[in-house]
Amino acid sequence: MSFLDHIARCNNARLAEFEPWFIGDERAGFVHRDFAPELARRPDLFAHRAAAWHLDPTLDTPAKRTAAVRAFLLELRGRGYFAGLWREEPYPVTWQWGRPPLMEIERAAAPWFGVRAFGPHLTGYVRRRDGLHVWVPRRSYAKPTFPGQLDNTVAGGQPAGIGLRDNLIKECAEEASIPRLLAEQARAVSYISYWNQSGPQLKPDIMVCFDLELAEDFTPRANDGEVHSFELWPVQRVFETVRDTFDFKYNCNLVLIDFFVRHGLFAADDPDFIHIVRELKATQPLET
Amino acid sequence: MSFLDHIARCNNARLAEFEPWFIGDERAGFVHRDFAPELARRPDLFAHRAAAWHLDPTLDTPAKRTAAVRAFLLELRGRGYFAGLWREEPYPVTWQWGRPPLMEIERAAAPWFGVRAFGPHLTGYVRRRDGLHVWVPRRSYAKPTFPGQLDNTVAGGQPAGIGLRDNLIKECAEEASIPRLLAEQARAVSYISYWNQSGPQLKPDIMVCFDLELAEDFTPRANDGEVHSFELWPVQRVFETVRDTFDFKYNCNLVLIDFFVRHGLFAADDPDFIHIVRELKATQPLET
Repeated sequence: MSFLDHIARCNNARLAEFEPWFIGDERAGFVHRDFAPELARRPDLFAHRAAAWHLDPTLDTPAKRTAAVRAFLLELRGRGYFAGLWREEPYPVTWQWGRPPLMEIERAAAPWFGVRAFGPHLTGYVRRRDGLHVWVPRRSYAKPTFPGQLDNTVAGGQPAGIGLRDNLIKECAEEASIPRLLAEQARAVSYISYWNQSGPQLKPDIMVCFDLELAEDFTPRANDGEVHSFELWPVQRVFETVRDTFDFKYNCNLVLIDFFVRHGLFAADDPDFIHIVRELKATQPLET
Repeated sequence: MSFLDHIARCNNARLAEFEPWFIGDERAGFVHRDFAPELARRPDLFAHRAAAWHLDPTLDTPAKRTAAVRAFLLELRGRGYFAGLWREEPYPVTWQWGRPPLMEIERAAAPWFGVRAFGPHLTGYVRRRDGLHVWVPRRSYAKPTFPGQLDNTVAGGQPAGIGLRDNLIKECAEEASIPRLLAEQARAVSYISYWNQSGPQLKPDIMVCFDLELAEDFTPRANDGEVHSFELWPVQRVFETVRDTFDFKYNCNLVLIDFFVRHGLFAADDPDFIHIVRELKATQPLET
């Protein structure tokens, strides 16, 4: 396997299996053909025309849309959907970060509607005399998603009502006991995007990459039970683990590959260099 | 104006005015409708079919293609083309860096055939106590292209027969008197791409971005007459000059914007952040 294999693995979506989902004139997401029958059962809420799904246009405010879709989702939950993943964590529904959301949707339901999720992913690193090192956490074995896998130093989903930076600072405290004054030094330096499909669920997500240089005497500590343990690895070990294994959670590999690029671990004359950098920001014809 | 305006200015190509130019099955470049009559005058060398130009397939080696096209170009030069820009500097003809070139073509002629050019662009910076600083050269007023404009610390076109890194090391010595041992510490950290049109000329180019941290006591010196002078600027002055002026050569703005992103000068919650980062690697539908 190789770095490009991780990118391909994240970008496994077969978009032909989906139809777009519109709120007014804006494409809010995508609905898989196997999930579409659930929408078809609710013609009061979802209309199908011209190979697309349209939310009831009389829901003319974000609050009305959020409430109506939530009632529908709770009904689905009652029939066994979102098993164990319902978090009461509202995600903003928007294709472009920074735009006022069209509505909010429960995190667990976002990929069922192919809604784009955002999130901050931080790489905490240390410049030691013997070279660059990266703080690598292992996810708690009790987490419902990707238990026990390796992760980015701090990472989180992006709920509605908070900025990416403030969310990162909050996650730094919760996941790694990084104090606010230190977390405020994190810098947004890139993003990664991918179109990931898991059965009828689609994640056309964008994760914003942050870097944070940490002092040698600082040690992150798990705080909220989401992280099993932290280890400080030489960057070459991280590089080889990403290159040769699936030990990191799928999208965390892309954040680390972006880190390797920005920190000069690839050679300009590597015939894959430009291709790797380009594909970290995968686009789809439908993305515009 | 804004950062996005620089990206739009670099990506001004109207591809509908061009037709692709093929060597065998591979698209080598693009020919503008106003330049096409010159190719039509040479049906022994260029065939037009299915809305595309095709190089004579009996030219079945890179050397044969290079020689035949060169003879054609010299004839054009005799009729006034490439005025003053002919350099006897062969560029590789390839769409993907690292692939064996289909042929070589004189640098001055590359944009007439919409051939993708590559090149290394280096940002030399200093971490001073009072913050990040960047070495900013002003191009010689005697240069045939973009005289007197501001430039990236070291930058050059990419001729055939040398790697990007070796070319950068050579340019570091020639343009800025940066000794080899120091230049070897430069790291490839990103690339920028754009589709720039100037009349019938098309530059669908890719520039590989290198960073080089320099010591406070090192001063680059113009060596080959290409640079008028070097100044060390606080990064905020570079940021504002890029944002507010056209003082930098057009594509150098993109390399600097990429530098600003990677060094954390943009905020994650800036509604333009993701858009700026994406557009630095502009693609066209025809690029695949």
